[in-house]
Amino acid sequence: MFKKGLLIVLSGPSGAGKGTIAKALLKNENNIKLSISTTTRKPRVGETDGKNYFFTTVDKFKNLIEEDKLLEWAKVYDNYYGTPKDFVLKNIEEGFDVILEIDIQGALKVKDKFPEGVFVFILPPSMEELKNRIKKRGTETEEEILKRFKCAYEEINFVSRYNYVVINDDVNNAVEKIKAIIVAEKCRVDRNKGLYLKIKEGQ
Amino acid sequence: MFKKGLLIVLSGPSGAGKGTIAKALLKNENNIKLSISTTTRKPRVGETDGKNYFFTTVDKFKNLIEEDKLLEWAKVYDNYYGTPKDFVLKNIEEGFDVILEIDIQGALKVKDKFPEGVFVFILPPSMEELKNRIKKRGTETEEEILKRFKCAYEEINFVSRYNYVVINDDVNNAVEKIKAIIVAEKCRVDRNKGLYLKIKEGQ
Repeated sequence: MFKKGLLIVLSGPSGAGKGTIAKALLKNENNIKLSISTTTRKPRVGETDGKNYFFTTVDKFKNLIEEDKLLEWAKVYDNYYGTPKDFVLKNIEEGFDVILEIDIQGALKVKDKFPEGVFVFILPPSMEELKNRIKKRGTETEEEILKRFKCAYEEINFVSRYNYVVINDDVNNAVEKIKAIIVAEKCRVDRNKGLYLKIKEGQ
Repeated sequence: MFKKGLLIVLSGPSGAGKGTIAKALLKNENNIKLSISTTTRKPRVGETDGKNYFFTTVDKFKNLIEEDKLLEWAKVYDNYYGTPKDFVLKNIEEGFDVILEIDIQGALKVKDKFPEGVFVFILPPSMEELKNRIKKRGTETEEEILKRFKCAYEEINFVSRYNYVVINDDVNNAVEKIKAIIVAEKCRVDRNKGLYLKIKEGQ
């Protein structure tokens, strides 16, 4: 069977719970790794290079862009953030499944560069629940919450660009579905070209 | 999420073990049903109409063909065998997953009429093992075994027409994979069109 790992892109509107699901996916799983971003922002207290982020300089980041070594990147205020291609490819080659938790714009950029990834859209059970979750974070003004909510409302239209949609009504339930998606994807005929030839030739 | 059931077509060369897998899939599962064939052959002792087969007459069978009420059919010696569309559609509509265990020619006919089915190709772990399994049945002459084996060898080329390929190296393992495929397929975006609209509109 398909021996390599998969890149699983978990994406969806803010408040859908993709971060919680990503963390829960890693529990008791030795075969799943979280993708590590590269950034030009300074490390915060307690952050380790190569664990929380790969910390780098603006010049080196720009080189990565030029050399096409990022699956996606974005500039947020004064800092660059990106997904290093090498990390993902190396782990996939070794048989690890790599989870990339990312916003919708980022996921669509990854899809252009790496269409063989598995693109999972996480949906909230309802828009009401999404609003509550955004509110609960409690870090934003009413105006910011409304803006974020409207943005989420529009972003849901992008689900059609994804392979799978998982409703996050219950984290464990969502995690079980994503695990099933990983197993199923590895059985897809288009990921196993050559397998039947090997069997026929007795290799 | 996707609330209807799925038609899961289990197929593959003779000796791959699709029958064993189909039976094992039904164990402890209330949501999975086996597709029941319609046939013009006479019931054998212990066979019940509507359980083992739907028994019918040649005239009625020919009507079913004309009215396009069979997903596939074949004539074997003097008897007709077919897969009734109504049984499959009714159960799917009620939310049951229907397993259809069928040879490769039959599966390809079903695919023409019902492309939204999930087509799973069961492979033996090796051709050597396939030969052993065909031999073990012990019902055929050496010549027949060789013929059957050659046929299986050629049939493996049809795997490219399927969605998934599962190696039957261990029945439980194969069953777990097929169960994961069922869960994953119900999360596919193309099976959930309209879902996100419902969520947006709060239905």
